This record gives sequence, structure tokens and C-alpha cells, in this order.
Amino acid sequence: MLIDVKTASSLLRDQDRILILAHQNPDGDTLGASFALLRTLLKMGKKARVRCAGGFSERYRFIYGDYEPDESFTPAFIAAADVAGLSLLGSLACEYEGNIDLCIDHHKSNTLYARHTLLDVEAPAACQIVYEIIKGLQVEIDDKIADAIFTGLSTDTGCFKYANVTSKTMRVAAEMIDCGARHAKINKLMFDTKSRGMLMIERLMMESLRFYFDGRCGMTFLPADISARFGVAEEELDGISAFPTRIEGVYAGITIRAKPEDTYRVSLRTVSPVDASKICGLFGGGGHVNAAGCTMTGDLDDITSCLLNAVEDELKQKAGFLIQPQSMFL
Amino acid sequence: MLIDVKTASSLLRDQDRILILAHQNPDGDTLGASFALLRTLLKMGKKARVRCAGGFSERYRFIYGDYEPDESFTPAFIAAADVAGLSLLGSLACEYEGNIDLCIDHHKSNTLYARHTLLDVEAPAACQIVYEIIKGLQVEIDDKIADAIFTGLSTDTGCFKYANVTSKTMRVAAEMIDCGARHAKINKLMFDTKSRGMLMIERLMMESLRFYFDGRCGMTFLPADISARFGVAEEELDGISAFPTRIEGVYAGITIRAKPEDTYRVSLRTVSPVDASKICGLFGGGGHVNAAGCTMTGDLDDITSCLLNAVEDELKQKAGFLIQPQSMFL
Repeated sequence: MLIDVKTASSLLRDQDRILILAHQNPDGDTLGASFALLRTLLKMGKKARVRCAGGFSERYRFIYGDYEPDESFTPAFIAAADVAGLSLLGSLACEYEGNIDLCIDHHKSNTLYARHTLLDVEAPAACQIVYEIIKGLQVEIDDKIADAIFTGLSTDTGCFKYANVTSKTMRVAAEMIDCGARHAKINKLMFDTKSRGMLMIERLMMESLRFYFDGRCGMTFLPADISARFGVAEEELDGISAFPTRIEGVYAGITIRAKPEDTYRVSLRTVSPVDASKICGLFGGGGHVNAAGCTMTGDLDDITSCLLNAVEDELKQKAGFLIQPQSMFL
Repeated sequence: MLIDVKTASSLLRDQDRILILAHQNPDGDTLGASFALLRTLLKMGKKARVRCAGGFSERYRFIYGDYEPDESFTPAFIAAADVAGLSLLGSLACEYEGNIDLCIDHHKSNTLYARHTLLDVEAPAACQIVYEIIKGLQVEIDDKIADAIFTGLSTDTGCFKYANVTSKTMRVAAEMIDCGARHAKINKLMFDTKSRGMLMIERLMMESLRFYFDGRCGMTFLPADISARFGVAEEELDGISAFPTRIEGVYAGITIRAKPEDTYRVSLRTVSPVDASKICGLFGGGGHVNAAGCTMTGDLDDITSCLLNAVEDELKQKAGFLIQPQSMFL
């Protein structure tokens, strides 16, 4: 059942012993939302815990500090934050299937697996929705809650850069700064701190980058096992597929990562109106209009020529609508 | 004389035929502030123009559109926006020396060259101060003014990433979005559009990058004439010096650019508490605590060893205070 903020707040107000689930490979938004909610509930005198398959990643320790998971906790109410589908709970999915009371989410793809779902697809981050709940619960936002909310807002919007940002997002961020969020430190850590391993991976991407169709398509290749080889956590690799489309004139950016046994993971990022999900759909994949992926098996040369043909077709169809960034404003 | 927003607004209200000066090598803030003010004054029925030594750069055409400079304009009142000192007017400095009625600025280094100076060093961008003036003048902010103000806020804060951002900045940005600023397009163009030439320059930086002192210092080298060689405007090169300090563990990032006749331009970026201005001061340069520069002449090997010695001394002095990003929050 879809519910509003008021109903979600009153559900939480009426409960105690609340378990909050974050999604596996946790990012800043799922952890920010989970821990902002946790601290809010603790401030209300309730018992509450957060859980996440595989544990919380070290990168976000500033959000959870010295919080330790507590496997012995027996919840009376189970919430999920920023979890679009049960499978995203990873190894915890079986345990909680059919038992989730409240889901707080902003993904269009939410499968409505929970008893009650508070879904706001206009919110760029689940943290923006949790902020509304905290307001509904009338709990004062302290600096730790502010850090958590700010992190989700910032990380899910590329530091307030993407089109999903609304004036509301900026105002909530402003309030979090007023409540003590360490915004500059958080942004420095999330957006201006590159590991040596990540630097090596970017260098590989630059070296392998090739352009096609008058520079409208850029393709880059990464060998297998880069995560282990360069000591870079998979979650830090999240953003690498955006690399080719950041280059001026590129409308379709392909990143191919080798996997075992002649298998390749293809990520496609596009600039509108070029449709990434349409192209990846041809190869059994899918995703969003500007970000999609597919898995392909076989000879690498065959795979790249299939992909390039598909991209060329799409570029031709949209040829009249491809405009340079400088002309975006005309 | 230092004045407040109210006085600045009433000065402008009482005047007509107003010329607004932007600084040379114009950036998003000086052009955003100048054109936001221009459009405000035009909406009030006044005559007004903007002028800038060397013209407005193409990169910011979305701010000024088809505005054409008008050399025949004879002003009765001259304002400067985001211009910290007369010399920053470039070739126009002589013409306007002693004749500037109002300066609107946010630089601590402002030389107070104007008859009246509205200086707010807490504002991350001159555009934030111009916003206050527009409010004082009670002019409705339209989408073009909103684009201009938003651009200054965003570009002078690294897309709301830096420590100079305040909750006020976020709230003004929110209001600009509500007034129609094309925030996502502006941010994409300013922060997510890299020219092919810039890509080549970054590749050169990556290839020449060396680490010293357990990775606490990173040094990169760029040959002469990269601007011409890769067709990259000097203003697009502004941010390259930040490259080495983005790498995890680097406290001192040195970028050396070769200039003619055995001369090298050294840019030093540091992470606190390492003091960039102190190090560059040793070689006749200067700047801010986290961003400074100097010009050195002679043999490149001698220059780099002098620099590295100075960096090593500073790192040793501050050794007890160097903390990894993850520990910034402790």
C-alpha cells in the first residue's frame, strides 16, 4: 500500500524495536537514510538497529561511526530505506521476504514488496524523504543526523549537479548545513578524494578510449579483475561508466569490462535524446534512458562491432536532435 | 568607502547610464554578476552596458546570449563586479582608474579602488551579493537573471562542493531554480563537459605524475604551449592545478608548466595544515594557504629538487597533523 509522509511518521511513532534495512553494496543514500532514521528513533527513546548484507562500507564510516551491528536484536517492525526491490537486500532477502512493514524509497522501479511504501519518485534521494519523516516526527535534527541526510542528498545528485536536483533539495541541504552538517568535508571525501588505484584505472580508461562516428561515440575498455588488481572496492567503481560521456561531443559512451570466460559487462551512458536502454535492450539488457547495461559473451571484436552498429543506428535516427552543449540553451 | 547592500541599491536606483565592468579572462562569477545586474537595471528602464577587456568568452555565451559590446556608450555611473583590484580590468584599467563609483566584490584582497565598495568576504560568489542588491531594488528575478546568478554561485563553489558554501548560498541557489535557472544544463556544461584537448592534457598530467614522501606529495609536469597545442582556452586550464591534491593521501600537489626561456610556472595546492603560500613565498611567489604559485627560472631538475626540499620541510613540520580523509571527521 502506498502511503504518505504523515502515515509513515505515525506508523513509526506507534512502534518500538525497529529494524532498518539498507541495500547491499551500500551507498551514501541508503546509509544516510538508514542512520538518520536510526538516530531519530533513538532520540525518541525507541530501540532501533540498522542492518545491511555484507556490512557497512568503510568509505561511509563518518556516517555510522562506531555503530556495531547487533545480530541478536529481535525487531517488532521492519523498515527498508532506499531499497527498490527485495533482491537488493542481497543475502538478507530470504530472511525478510514478506516481513517488511515500511519501505521508504525514491526509485521508480520500486517493486512495492513492503506492507506500506512511502515512495516519492521526485525526490533525488531517499534522504530527502527521511528528512520529511523526521519533520513529521518533530525530532530536532542534530549534527549527526544532518551529516547523514546531507550525504545522501549530495551523493545521489553528484554534488547537486544532476537534473534530479530541485529547489527543495537545495533548501533541505541548506537546513542540514545550519544543523551542523560537515558539508565541505563530506563533499571533499565523496567527490575530491581519488585512490591511487582509481587513478590507475582512469589512466587505463584514457589509454583505451577510442572515438567513433565523428566523436559522437566514445568507447573504453577495462580488463578483468581491476577491482582486485588495483585494490579498489566495487562501490568506488560505480561512477566510472560516466567517463566517456563527460567528453565534449560524446552522446553515447560505452564502457566494456572483461569478466571471466569470454563474458563482457557493457555499460552505456548517453546524452539525450540518444536512448541507452533501447540499445542495451537489443542485447538482452536494460536500464534507464541515459544509463543502461547488458552482458555479452563471445569474441570481443564481434561484440564491439555489434555495439557500434547499434549505436550508429540510434545516432542516425536521432541525428537531427544532437546538439552541442553550447547549444543546449538555444 | 565601504557600504552596505541598502546603500548600494539606492546608489543604483538613483542613477542612469550605468556601465558594469567585469574582470579580464572573465569567469562565471564576474559575467554572472555583471549580466544579472545589467538585466535588472534594464528591467528598471535604465540604460546600462557591460564591458570586459578582451571580450566575453564563448564558454559563457548562455549568460550573455546575443549581447554585443557598445563602445560608444557614455556612462554616468561606473560599477565593477567581482573585480578585486584595478589591474584585473586588464587593458581597461588606465581608462577607468579613479572613475569607478561602485565595486561589488567578495575577495578579501579587494584594494578598495572604487568610490564605494560593497564587500562581503563571507559570500562565496559576487553573484550572491548581486542577488541581495536585486532584492533591494525589488526587481523580479526572471529566468535569465536566475541563470546568471546560479552560474556564479555554482562556478565559484565547484558546484557547491567547497568550504565557502553556506546555507545562504544553497537557499539563493534554490530560489534561482524556482525562478527558472537551467541548473542541470549549466552544471553539465561547467562541470561535466571536457574538451578532447583537455582530455589529452589530463592524460599528460597522469603520465608525468610522480609521488614523493610516502605519497604525501604529488608532482606533475606540463610542457610549454599546451593551450595552443591542444586548442584549450587558458580559462579552461584554471582547474588543472587541483589535480594532484585530489588523490588520496596527497597533502601537497605541485603542477609545473613550462614557459619560454627556462622559466617554469609552479602551482601548489595543499590540504590543510600544509601551507602553500609559505612554500611558494620561499621562491618569491605567494597566494592563499591552500593555493599558491611562483615562477622559477633555471634547470628543471634543480627547480624540482628545491621545491621538493621545501615541501619536505613543511611536511615534516606538520607531520603530527596530517590526517587521512577518512579521519577528517574524528
